[in-house]
Amino acid sequence: MSKGRFESFSDGVIAVAITLLVLNLRVPAPSAHRSLLHGLTHQWPAYAAYATSFITIGIIWINHHVMVGRLSRPDHAIMMLNLVLLLTIAVLPFATNVMATYLTQPHGEKLAAAVYAGAFLLMSLAFATLNRHILFAKAHLLTVQLPAQERRRILLRTISGLVPYAIATALAAVSPYITLAICAGLAAFYATPLASSATRSQE
Amino acid sequence: MSKGRFESFSDGVIAVAITLLVLNLRVPAPSAHRSLLHGLTHQWPAYAAYATSFITIGIIWINHHVMVGRLSRPDHAIMMLNLVLLLTIAVLPFATNVMATYLTQPHGEKLAAAVYAGAFLLMSLAFATLNRHILFAKAHLLTVQLPAQERRRILLRTISGLVPYAIATALAAVSPYITLAICAGLAAFYATPLASSATRSQE
Amino acid sequence: MSKGRFESFSDGVIAVAITLLVLNLRVPAPSAHRSLLHGLTHQWPAYAAYATSFITIGIIWINHHVMVGRLSRPDHAIMMLNLVLLLTIAVLPFATNVMATYLTQPHGEKLAAAVYAGAFLLMSLAFATLNRHILFAKAHLLTVQLPAQERRRILLRTISGLVPYAIATALAAVSPYITLAICAGLAAFYATPLASSATRSQE
Amino acid sequence: MSKGRFESFSDGVIAVAITLLVLNLRVPAPSAHRSLLHGLTHQWPAYAAYATSFITIGIIWINHHVMVGRLSRPDHAIMMLNLVLLLTIAVLPFATNVMATYLTQPHGEKLAAAVYAGAFLLMSLAFATLNRHILFAKAHLLTVQLPAQERRRILLRTISGLVPYAIATALAAVSPYITLAICAGLAAFYATPLASSATRSQE
Repeated sequence: MSKGRFESFSDGVIAVAITLLVLNLRVPAPSAHRSLLHGLTHQWPAYAAYATSFITIGIIWINHHVMVGRLSRPDHAIMMLNLVLLLTIAVLPFATNVMATYLTQPHGEKLAAAVYAGAFLLMSLAFATLNRHILFAKAHLLTVQLPAQERRRILLRTISGLVPYAIATALAAVSPYITLAICAGLAAFYATPLASSATRSQE
Repeated sequence: MSKGRFESFSDGVIAVAITLLVLNLRVPAPSAHRSLLHGLTHQWPAYAAYATSFITIGIIWINHHVMVGRLSRPDHAIMMLNLVLLLTIAVLPFATNVMATYLTQPHGEKLAAAVYAGAFLLMSLAFATLNRHILFAKAHLLTVQLPAQERRRILLRTISGLVPYAIATALAAVSPYITLAICAGLAAFYATPLASSATRSQE
Repeated sequence: MSKGRFESFSDGVIAVAITLLVLNLRVPAPSAHRSLLHGLTHQWPAYAAYATSFITIGIIWINHHVMVGRLSRPDHAIMMLNLVLLLTIAVLPFATNVMATYLTQPHGEKLAAAVYAGAFLLMSLAFATLNRHILFAKAHLLTVQLPAQERRRILLRTISGLVPYAIATALAAVSPYITLAICAGLAAFYATPLASSATRSQE
Repeated sequence: MSKGRFESFSDGVIAVAITLLVLNLRVPAPSAHRSLLHGLTHQWPAYAAYATSFITIGIIWINHHVMVGRLSRPDHAIMMLNLVLLLTIAVLPFATNVMATYLTQPHGEKLAAAVYAGAFLLMSLAFATLNRHILFAKAHLLTVQLPAQERRRILLRTISGLVPYAIATALAAVSPYITLAICAGLAAFYATPLASSATRSQE
C-alpha cells in the first residue's frame, strides 16, 4: 500500500465530510407569516454547530497529516484503524445535524448535546488508538526513529485531547449550551497561534 | 492513460460514495409525542447498515489498491471494467438505504435484504471480472510477471469472496437479519488481524 | 498553473458529480398498499437514466484525460473553458433526475427527454470547444507538436460525437424512449471493445 | 505539512462545494395543473445563481492556486486561515440556495440578495486576509522573494476585488436583481480574456 494513495483517500473522505456539513443549513421556506430574517436567525444553532464542526474536522485533518507524516508506509492494521477513524469523521455531519436541530427544543436537547460531543469524543478516541498503534506497535514503520520517551510524550498529548470532549459530553446532562460552548471553545483555541505552538510542541 | 489519474479518479468516487452513506442517517423530527432517544434508537438498522457498508467499501478500496498496484498502466478495457465497478460501488448508498428503511418493516424486509446483499454480490462480481481481466487477458500490463499458477490462486481467492455474499443474498428469503449479520460479519472479519494475514496471502 | 492541480480539480468535480447521481435513486416509502417490489420496479427509468449518465460521465472523464494529456500546461483561457465544461458535467445529476422523474409521466415527458439529451449535447459542445481551443489556438502548449491535418482529424472526431446527441434531442419530440435508447446506446457503444479502437484511432 | 497534501485537501473541499451547488436545482413535482416547462422556467433564478456561483468558485480556486503557488510550504497559521477560507467557500451552496429561493418572492428578497453577495464578500475577505498573511507576515515562506512594492501591488489588487461585492451587498437594499447582475457580471468579467490579462498582471 503506497502512502500517497492512503493519504489521498483519507483526504477525500475528510474533504467530502467537511463540505457535506453545509447540507445542515436549511433555507427557510418562503412564508407570509414569518420573515426570512426570522427564519435565518432562528437557526443560529445550525451556524454555531456548523462552524464548530468545520473547524474541528479541519484540525483533525491537520493532526491526521502530522500523524501519517511520521509513517513510512501503512500496513493492514493501520489501514483498518484509519478506516474506523474515517467512519467517526464521516458521521459528524449527522451528529452536527442532531445538535443543530435539538439545541433550542424543549425536549431531547441534552441528549442531542451528548451525541454531538460524544461523536467528537469517539473520533478523538479513534485517533488516539491509531496514533498509539503507529507509535508503539508499528514503531519500525516510522520514517524517523523516535525515542520511547518522545513517543510517550506525543501519545500523552493525544490522549489529553480526549479529556475536554469527555467533560463536554458529561456536562450535556447539565446544559447543552455548555457542551456547545466547550466544543466551540476547543475549535477556537486550536485555531489560535497559541495552539500553533501547542501543536508544534506536540509533534 | 496515466495510472496516477486513473487511481485518483477511482479514489475520488469511492471516497464520495463512502461519505455519502451518512445521508442515510436521519435526524428524528422534534415531536412532543416521541423522545429523541426513541427516534435515535429506533433507527438502529440504519447504524448497522451504515457501519457495515462503510467498512465494506473501505475494504474494497484497499483491494482495489492492491489490484491496481499490480498494473503498469490501464488500457481502454480496464478503464471500462473499472467504470462498471465504480458504478456498483456508487450505488451502495442507495442499497444501504433500502436495507435500513425496510429491515424492521412488516413488508418488503426480505426483498430489501436481498437488494442489500445482492448489491455487494454485484460489486464483488464486477471486482472479480476486472481482476480476472487484468490477471489473464492483460498479463503483459502487470508490473511484475506472475506465474500462471500464482495468478490462478489470486483469482480463486477473489472469486471465493463472492460465495458468502451469494449465500447472504439467498438467505434473505429466510430472514433479513441473517443477511445483515453475514454482511456485518464479513466486514468485521476483514477488519481483524486474521483477515490481515488472509489478505496478505491473497496478494 | 501546474497541470497536476488542474487535473486533480477536474477529477474531483467529475468524481463528485458521477457519485451524486445516486441521490436520484429514491427508497420507496414503506406503505401498506404498495409493495417494495412495486416501488423498486416502478422507478426503472431512474435506473436506466442512472446507468446511462454514469457511463457517459465516465467516458467524458476518459476523453478529458486524453485531451489534457496532450497539453504541457493550461493557461487562463483553457482553465475558463474547462470550468464551463465542468459546469455542464456538474449539472448532469439534475438533468438525469428530470428525465427519470418524467419519463413515464403523461405530461412533460418529451421536454424532460429533450432536457436530458440536450444536457449531453451541451456537455459535448463544451468539450469540443475546449478541444478546438487547445488544438488550434494553443497548439504551442501541446506536449507533442501534431501536424495540422492530424489536429483537424481529432477535432472532426470530437465534433462528430455531437451528432448523435443532437439527433437524440430532436427525437424527444417523437418519443422520450427513443431519446433514452440513443443515449444509453451511445454509452454502451463507447464501453465496448469496438469503441476502444475507435477511441484509440481518435487520439 | 507538505504543500501537496495542503493543496489536495483544499482542491477537494472546493471541488465538492462547487459540485454540491447542483442540489439547489430541483425537479418540479409532476402535476396535472402546471407543466414541466412552467416548472423549469419558473426556477430561472436558481439557474442564474447556480452559474454565477459555479464560475465564481471556479475563479476563487484559480486564485487560490496562484496564491499557494507562491508558497514553499504552509505553517499552522496559514493552514488555519486557509481553513476559514474553505469554510466561507463551503457555505456558498447555502447562500446560493437562499438567493435562488427568494429572488422572485414578495418578501425577504432583499435580505436574500444581501446574504448572497455578503457571502461572496466574506469569502473575498478571507482570501485577502490569507493572502496578506502570506505576503507580509510569512514572506520568508515564499518560493521567490518578491520586493515589498510588488507584494503591496498584489495585495492591493486582491483588496480591490472586495469593492464590487461590498457594493453588490449594499445595493441589495435597492433591488436584489441589481445584486445578482453585479455578481453575475463579475463572474463573466473574470471569465473573459480581458480578465486573463488582469489576472496575469495581478500575479
